[in-house]
Amino acid sequence: MKLYHSWLSSASRRVRLCLAEKHIAYESVPIDMRRQEHHQPAYLAMNPNGVVPALRLDNGESLYESGTICEYLDDIQPEPPLRPDDAYQRAVMRNFVRWTDDKALPNLLILNWSIVFQPQAQQWSDAELADRLSRVPTAERREAWQRISRQPYTDEEKRAALDRLLALVPKMEAMLGDSPWLFGERFTLADIAAIPFIARIAELSPASLTAEAAPRVAAWWQRVQARPAFASARIDRFDDALRERAA
Amino acid sequence: MKLYHSWLSSASRRVRLCLAEKHIAYESVPIDMRRQEHHQPAYLAMNPNGVVPALRLDNGESLYESGTICEYLDDIQPEPPLRPDDAYQRAVMRNFVRWTDDKALPNLLILNWSIVFQPQAQQWSDAELADRLSRVPTAERREAWQRISRQPYTDEEKRAALDRLLALVPKMEAMLGDSPWLFGERFTLADIAAIPFIARIAELSPASLTAEAAPRVAAWWQRVQARPAFASARIDRFDDALRERAA
Repeated sequence: MKLYHSWLSSASRRVRLCLAEKHIAYESVPIDMRRQEHHQPAYLAMNPNGVVPALRLDNGESLYESGTICEYLDDIQPEPPLRPDDAYQRAVMRNFVRWTDDKALPNLLILNWSIVFQPQAQQWSDAELADRLSRVPTAERREAWQRISRQPYTDEEKRAALDRLLALVPKMEAMLGDSPWLFGERFTLADIAAIPFIARIAELSPASLTAEAAPRVAAWWQRVQARPAFASARIDRFDDALRERAA
Repeated sequence: MKLYHSWLSSASRRVRLCLAEKHIAYESVPIDMRRQEHHQPAYLAMNPNGVVPALRLDNGESLYESGTICEYLDDIQPEPPLRPDDAYQRAVMRNFVRWTDDKALPNLLILNWSIVFQPQAQQWSDAELADRLSRVPTAERREAWQRISRQPYTDEEKRAALDRLLALVPKMEAMLGDSPWLFGERFTLADIAAIPFIARIAELSPASLTAEAAPRVAAWWQRVQARPAFASARIDRFDDALRERAA
């Protein structure tokens, strides 16, 4: 299979982590979002939402939405299992993944887009912006591109976004209890869903992840980084990755 | 188990349909949303988002999110199965359910809230509105209540919402092909996800569901209404239900 992804996007990182945990071989196809490669017709045929990632199967079919892709991978390659065996725990896990999609991701986008896209997008002429927006398939993302290019987020808005993003930490602290992972002894898709956000929080607000501030999440984050899949999925530091890209 | 639900909410209707298809017995606990019963602490302990429905299990645990609840019910009561056997089809089904959550539901809320809540909410004093908003747990729903009470949707906005809601019809027309149900010969959670929206479209825009306008969806809708679960789940007409409630 082929994964169309970006190195820095949280959803792409989740799918790379899941593929790595499962030891599933795949071809990596990095997408340059600044060049709108994810809004080209060939890409939109795989993912009509025009966001990364998209997974192309060997039979030519394709899938999108990181949560959906990860459950699919756990279905076709059951070992090691990445969902709880218990039906109720599986349901709670799905709601946690959804919570990160609804509550964490929009706030991380505000922070990341301000760094990655704003400097370039502010320079686009009105005609260039209109042309680019015409290729964005969803109203939500058209609005996000419009904002980042013409009405960048203020420092106050970015602080508020970070505050909302940080709500993930006490939530996870409560879930972890005395367990190594969010759903007990088994590492699951809930841990994978959280990793890109905690990785970014570790960069943006390291004080929130000290052993004093959040002992269980801090220990979880150490365990996460020690997993072989963490290295092979290339969850690089955001600023390192940007420097490398610039070079 | 106990289902805390409202007769008219789309998410509640989905879960009632799923329970009925599975022949799972449950206690029905209708929630009066105009009295904010879903924002009481006891309810929020079951569903922190403060929306209907919530499912209380016999062991005291609870679940929310209609998509999550329906998959849970299909896990604990496998017959009749309500998901495709094929992993890829199951993934596509999940993305369809998510599409209805993201694209259909917000538009139906604009239309339904304008009828059900606006007349009463417009009369609330500023103090009463502030008091009510203080109990709504999510920013999204606080904004929705603020809007419906102080800046009701215009006719133009409601027409636009209906237009966006109607996008479900050609999407389903394309999916159905020559099959009786959205994922082939098996009635699935995708059909259940669509039913509350098509039921409402049948009331708001019957011309969109004629045999000429959408032959496959029109035939699907006839098949849906002939299912025993449709009657036992009480997918009543919206206006009939409101009249009954007023009486």
